[in-house]
Amino acid sequence: MRIAVDVMGGDHGCGVIIAGVKAALLENKDITTIYLVGNKADIHAALPPRGFRDHRVRIVHATEVIEMEDKPVVALRKKKDSSIGRAADLVHDGHADALISLGNTGGIFAAGTFKVGRIPGVDRGCIATVIPRQGNEFVLLDAGANTECKPLHLAQFAVMGSVYCREILKHKNPRVGILSNGTEDSKGNDLTLEAFRLCKKLDLNFIGNVEGHDLFKDHVDVVVCDGFVGNIVLKTIESLAVGMFSMLKRELMHNTQRKLGAYLAKDAFQSIRRRMDPEVYGGAPLLGFNGIVFKSHASARERAVASAIRVTASTVKNHINQTIARDIAAANKILDAEINPSANT
Amino acid sequence: MRIAVDVMGGDHGCGVIIAGVKAALLENKDITTIYLVGNKADIHAALPPRGFRDHRVRIVHATEVIEMEDKPVVALRKKKDSSIGRAADLVHDGHADALISLGNTGGIFAAGTFKVGRIPGVDRGCIATVIPRQGNEFVLLDAGANTECKPLHLAQFAVMGSVYCREILKHKNPRVGILSNGTEDSKGNDLTLEAFRLCKKLDLNFIGNVEGHDLFKDHVDVVVCDGFVGNIVLKTIESLAVGMFSMLKRELMHNTQRKLGAYLAKDAFQSIRRRMDPEVYGGAPLLGFNGIVFKSHASARERAVASAIRVTASTVKNHINQTIARDIAAANKILDAEINPSANT
Repeated sequence: MRIAVDVMGGDHGCGVIIAGVKAALLENKDITTIYLVGNKADIHAALPPRGFRDHRVRIVHATEVIEMEDKPVVALRKKKDSSIGRAADLVHDGHADALISLGNTGGIFAAGTFKVGRIPGVDRGCIATVIPRQGNEFVLLDAGANTECKPLHLAQFAVMGSVYCREILKHKNPRVGILSNGTEDSKGNDLTLEAFRLCKKLDLNFIGNVEGHDLFKDHVDVVVCDGFVGNIVLKTIESLAVGMFSMLKRELMHNTQRKLGAYLAKDAFQSIRRRMDPEVYGGAPLLGFNGIVFKSHASARERAVASAIRVTASTVKNHINQTIARDIAAANKILDAEINPSANT
Repeated sequence: MRIAVDVMGGDHGCGVIIAGVKAALLENKDITTIYLVGNKADIHAALPPRGFRDHRVRIVHATEVIEMEDKPVVALRKKKDSSIGRAADLVHDGHADALISLGNTGGIFAAGTFKVGRIPGVDRGCIATVIPRQGNEFVLLDAGANTECKPLHLAQFAVMGSVYCREILKHKNPRVGILSNGTEDSKGNDLTLEAFRLCKKLDLNFIGNVEGHDLFKDHVDVVVCDGFVGNIVLKTIESLAVGMFSMLKRELMHNTQRKLGAYLAKDAFQSIRRRMDPEVYGGAPLLGFNGIVFKSHASARERAVASAIRVTASTVKNHINQTIARDIAAANKILDAEINPSANT
């Protein structure tokens, strides 16, 4: 298995990413090649004095970077020698099975769309974010790639999310729901109501509409929405979790008795922090592309990068894209008939 | 000041609501009349043996109730003698300044729209929910009344939310933001991009787009979105907050040492719980109507009902609707020119 790592996008420089690669290589024998894609001089400066000492590592030089403030599609076209573009080329040309980047999410998505290419039958790729809750987790998709969606896209996200949840998270028969403003069948906007109708026809464990109240209650495993709503929901969750921890910390530091209590109970807080820690998941997979594409947090450090590589390797190993291609082909037969009923007569 | 309380909508029966009314009357001398609107027999059965003993209380009989599962607009029309309908009539006919209900939110909104009526110039009423965070709070609107919105509606929500935040929550110069999938000006969907353009023209402290990450960071005081997104965000926040508390409780009960720690630090948890407690706010005001309309949680008990009455009384006292009427009229002059530029030539 061969993985291309774009080492240029992180907040902490490529040294941290390379350290994560090193940790991942130590624990993972399935990886035969890791490409470090980025500025050669930066990479060499970040390497240990005598180089990497692992024959599985290859450096691929790229002179440019798609920065966080760049317009993704424009930047991908103009910066012909960008690190994410080169990493995507490696996947497209069959040299790598997967790519990982900590950079501009839009840039990674554009590289997936225009360089790696989509799985046949998939109309839009999407971001699938795994969100932890007590006892297990759920997948939210699209978590931000597609601001405007059509019902067909939501139906395909449902199919891809279901495959990911089953094959990677090992939920046996994932419950798929459409995120709406109420659980009744009649709730929703024009987009979700039509997506609801389509999803009911598909071979999914479709449970209908779910609302915000369901997310942390183990009612649903795959939560489908457009990227506008998904981005807002994801960031709201992150913001509230951080806000509640900081409120708790402040309250616990209020006086000596509380401090002592906090000290005695510190394992409880650590356990929750570990549970809610985004580093465990290492980032989020982009689904629907002809190769595994994984977005890691820009703020990721060694441990998170190693997690990202571990999750990516497991995704490659599970042949998830073959399953997505098969399930999407089956779904499209139904969707085509539903969306263009005249085509069938 | 005269308040109509629909006593039929709560989960715990009208006795709890009447107890809340009693508590509110004791502390509030500004209230001259409270109408208990609902089934007379139920109300009498819930009253203390010798009646209420407060000359300010009047009972208004209504034989029907809009149930949670009713379609609001249809039910309001068909159930001519519903408690929420009767309460709205009291406001419309000038017998009451405000109404409070724990019932079907859609039913209250429909009663506001079709019976109380909108403030001149307001195109759509909306639900404004106050959400606590460390140190202060923010207003989210529309929190669920209007599934599909136009840019004009969002701009008017911005105006009404700003007035509410300034006059009732006493934020001096409320920062108004449009909830979007990123903070850059270019982020958003068709609806929010056009609403952004309109809000920039208005006399508001408009800070542009805000994202989920901003909500619990004291970056914004008035968060504007359509009711579909608002409903999802609000319920997601409630779900995560409850989920985190239950995770914490579980972890703290794990062993004796943690239990002891939790006991010593219990004031810290209580302080956060009080801070995040929806009962403090008693519910959410519906803005834009020709009278104060307040939705209390169906699960509200005595204390929350008393809070709802207190918040409602303070809203009446602050003449918020006169201010909304004035600010909306000023905003509409600008909005009319922006939306129909030809009308000005």
